[in-house]
Formats: sequence, structure tokens, C-alpha cells
Amino acid sequence: MSGHVVALCGGVGGAKLAQGLARVLPGEDLTIIVNTGDDFRHLGLWISPDIDSVLYALADLSDPVRGWGRRDESWGFMAALARLGGEAWFQLGDGDLAIHVERSWRLAAGESLSAVTGRFCKALGVRASILPMSDDPVSTRIDTDAGWLDFQDYFVRRRCEPRVQGIEYSGAHGARPQPAALGALTRPDLRAVVICPSNPFLSIEPILALPAIRKALRETRAPVVAITPIIGGEAVKGPAAKMLRELGFESDSAAVARRYAGLVDVFVCDSSDPLPAPIAEMNLVSAPTLMTGVAEREQLARDTLRFADETSALR
Amino acid sequence: MSGHVVALCGGVGGAKLAQGLARVLPGEDLTIIVNTGDDFRHLGLWISPDIDSVLYALADLSDPVRGWGRRDESWGFMAALARLGGEAWFQLGDGDLAIHVERSWRLAAGESLSAVTGRFCKALGVRASILPMSDDPVSTRIDTDAGWLDFQDYFVRRRCEPRVQGIEYSGAHGARPQPAALGALTRPDLRAVVICPSNPFLSIEPILALPAIRKALRETRAPVVAITPIIGGEAVKGPAAKMLRELGFESDSAAVARRYAGLVDVFVCDSSDPLPAPIAEMNLVSAPTLMTGVAEREQLARDTLRFADETSALR
Repeated sequence: MSGHVVALCGGVGGAKLAQGLARVLPGEDLTIIVNTGDDFRHLGLWISPDIDSVLYALADLSDPVRGWGRRDESWGFMAALARLGGEAWFQLGDGDLAIHVERSWRLAAGESLSAVTGRFCKALGVRASILPMSDDPVSTRIDTDAGWLDFQDYFVRRRCEPRVQGIEYSGAHGARPQPAALGALTRPDLRAVVICPSNPFLSIEPILALPAIRKALRETRAPVVAITPIIGGEAVKGPAAKMLRELGFESDSAAVARRYAGLVDVFVCDSSDPLPAPIAEMNLVSAPTLMTGVAEREQLARDTLRFADETSALR
Repeated sequence: MSGHVVALCGGVGGAKLAQGLARVLPGEDLTIIVNTGDDFRHLGLWISPDIDSVLYALADLSDPVRGWGRRDESWGFMAALARLGGEAWFQLGDGDLAIHVERSWRLAAGESLSAVTGRFCKALGVRASILPMSDDPVSTRIDTDAGWLDFQDYFVRRRCEPRVQGIEYSGAHGARPQPAALGALTRPDLRAVVICPSNPFLSIEPILALPAIRKALRETRAPVVAITPIIGGEAVKGPAAKMLRELGFESDSAAVARRYAGLVDVFVCDSSDPLPAPIAEMNLVSAPTLMTGVAEREQLARDTLRFADETSALR
């Protein structure tokens, strides 16, 4: 089947499926809308962690062992920064710094985040469209037992240790969706929307907090397929399960699925878990979702597209 | 003899004598006033090449082979930047980047260049005072047969190839000298002022272009000793000899000495060169000025201080 595929995506976990989709689809058939709620300014540099994770994954530059950042990275900058007494809690690899420095001066010169991202895609040979959800700033902030925290303060500096009581996506209501991202979601040839196996609170819901994007998802006639980030009650990586529990939910696939009620047609659970009890207007299916290597990423991409196409065929 | 010593200094060559002085004097007895006419903004970062050369020399971090930048440097940033299509004509090592990033965000936050430099001195264990000539921007610009060029465009990108017709120190007339720098030059216990063997046009005259600093040098009762940057008609490093010739001077020590007439009491030529014909009110002496190693730097520092102290004794 042909047509355009749009993926909604956060950082590392979502980037793996985005890479799988990019390997099984022609580049011109794939748009990846990436969360920017984690973006922040650090040492005067503008850092977009999720965009970079997706870029590195699609350019085959990701570090497969560390699980974040670039492969074959060196750390001369961090060592010298620490010696100068600079803030060393956020690790910036030497190669990774290039993207932050180049992006920062271009943003300061008036280029949009999407234009800069498009420039990097071209330079790195990435043919899919990687788009920030918005060129306007949106900041995920976490209400915890240690007070309201900026995202990276919670996530990196405090290693997700504070207990989460609430989340806000500051600026989301007034932020304009990136026009090409919204355009992709309303294409007449839209084949599927894929919600990647990313943290619902930190990666997907900031995107859905943009009213026009949520509306486009609710109204699209294309099937919307979400993949669980929870396997066996735990997140593959990151604090999704811990946050679910702290916010009063079960830490299972069903709890994530219910957050997407009204938006999602098919929810993919991991094949090692029992299927949850039915959820209204949602088709619960299962597939291997643990993407240990490139082959598994491609397979989950194919399974996801198959679920979408089967849903279309039934309509 | 005791008292305070002030050195005027540019980049690599001057930094070697500054290191020698720092090794033979107690830290509290030495102030180094550094040229900032080469400073520029690149990739959104504020780069102060001469301050960094002096800092690295005094912190024993200089690369002894390459002749600029830090020892044990890595180049992951430049490789990644080139792959992103970024501007790669100005080499920024990974460790070196730390100083540019840390300085840039602090300047943007409102700290002065001298405060940031003082912070770095403290972090790197440098006890001498390294001061920019001014916290206000001054830009050396070169009039060439290829038109007016910004300094780094002339010096790095075009490798000093265009023929020089003139030089201006843009902003120098209105720039305020750094207060502690001017204060050091007017201390009652001033033992000597040392003009390091730096390029007169590119390193020393931008400092002397600040009217209050030139006035302080002219009026000081302390001996002023300058060291030739020219040996055997050529510069040890950089375009000093080429610029002298292009601007219509002989490329020899005497030509440099005459540029400092009225300011300098003692001019030190290299001991391998014949002493020039007498210059009014200037004592021409000679000493080994090629500072191949730390021992030679210390020796030239001692010789320079001896020339100063002998001049004082005759007064």
C-alpha cells in the first residue's frame, strides 16, 4: 500500500521505531513530528534532545551501547569545561556539540528550528522529513514533591528521582504547530499516523497539547496506531512506569492506551504481555516491540504499517 | 629588586615571555595586559585568541608542537561540524571549545570579559593577573589589496596572503582601558613595563591605541623594555616581517624599535643580529630572544628584568 505516514515521536525509544519506518518506507513518504518540550538552553546553547535523537538514529550516528548521543563520541569538551569550573551535569559530547553550536547561532540569526533541522537532515543524508512539533517554544515542567522543576532539571540533574504530582506543557496552548507537520497530518493520501513507543507524559502528550495537532488526529480518516512503551510493567528506558505509578495509574500498556482514547484506532502491546481488557473503540493487538537491533526496528515498523493497512481495509 | 611588573602582550610569541615572567616572579607581582583586537564572534561564540594563548601558556596547557591551542587536543567537534556543513575554516579543538562556550554565555549574561578571564585564571591555578586591554570591543581591521578585511578573515581564512596597505583599531578611541590594567600601569611600586615580542601592528599597537594606556606608558617613571619579534629579518611566527615590508619598512628590529620611540627605554634585539644604529632616547641591547623551551623563556624574562633594573639604577 502507498501513501504518506506520519510518526509522532520523542527521544530514544521513539527514535528506534522512526529509524525502522525510515528504513522500510521511501524517504518522501515519511514525516516525523518530534517533541520539543524537552528543549532547553544550556551554557548559552539551544539543545533539542529529541530532534537530535531522531536525527542521529536516521543518520545511523546513534551510540548503540550508551543509548543516547553519538557513536564514537569523545569527551574533551566536558573534561575542559569541568576544569574551568563550568556546569558539568549535562553531558555534551564533542561531536554532539557541533549540532548544538550550529543550531544555536542559526536560531539566534533568525532561522526557524524547522529550517535548521531540515538543513541538518540534508547534510546528514536523511531523506524523511524530521519536523519539530512547533517552531515556538514549549517547555515541559514537572510538579514534584521537590517543587516545580524544569524538565532537564528533573530528568538529568535529579535523575527522575523526585515524585511526580503533575505536568504542564508551558506555552503549548499558544504555540503554532509547525505548518508542514500539520500539513502532513491533513494530507489526502495519509496512510497512517504512528504514535511511537515514547513516554506518553514527556514525549507524546506535549505534541498532543498543541490543540490543532490533537484536532487533526481526532479528525483524520487515516488509522492511528500507537505502540506501547511499557513491557512487563516497566519502561524499556526512562521514567514512564515510575511516572504512571506516581500519577495514580497502573504501570501497564492499558494505562497508556487509555490516555490515547478517542485518538487511537489500534494499540500495539508487546507480545510477551497478556492483551489488556477491551478499551472502547480501540483495537488492541500485539507484536514484538522490544527493538534490540535494526532488524527488530524494521519488523516493528512493518507490523505497525500492517495493522494500519488492515484497519483501513475494514473501513 | 621588588615591585610590580606589567607586560603588554599579544598571542603565541608574547605568551611565551609572559609564561617566563610568570615563572620567575611571584604571581601577585605580575599583570599581563592582553590585546583583544583579534577577538571575534564565530558560530555565535565569543573568541579571544590572545587571552586564551596567554591563559594556556601560564596554565601550562599550550600545545608545544602545533604552536597554538591546547596540548592533548581532540577534534571531534570540527569533524562533526564539517559533516553538518558548518563553517570549518577556523579550527576549534574540543577542549578549547570549553573556554569559548563558557565565556560566551557569561558575557551574554552580562559578565565583563575581565571578570570571566579572572574566573578562568582562578580555575586554572594562574596567579598572575591576566587582563584584557579593555572590556569594550576593539576590532583590528586590515586594509589590503583585497579590500578591508576583518582580522580573522585576513589572518586565518586568507592565511595573511593579501598585501597589507593599512590597519585600523576600530572602537579603540572610545574604548575604556580595563581599570585594573590602567591601575597597574600607574602603581607607585611599578618596577617595569615589558612589551612582549609580539607583532607590533596586530598585538601591541591595538593596546597602545587606547589613549589612556599610551599616556600611562609615556608618563611612567618605571623603565619600559620592549623585545624584538624579528630575528634575522623574519618573524619567529606570523606575518610581522611581511607586514613591515608591505607597509614600506625594513623587516628588522630597528623598524620595530622606531615604532615604539618615545615610549620605550630599552629595546632588546636578538643576540644573533648585529645591534642597529642608535635610536634617540632608546637603549639598544641584545639577548637570546628565541624562546624554544621553558628554560629560554625564564632566561629572557630574567634578562628583561635585569635590563629594566639596570635602567632604574642609572636614574
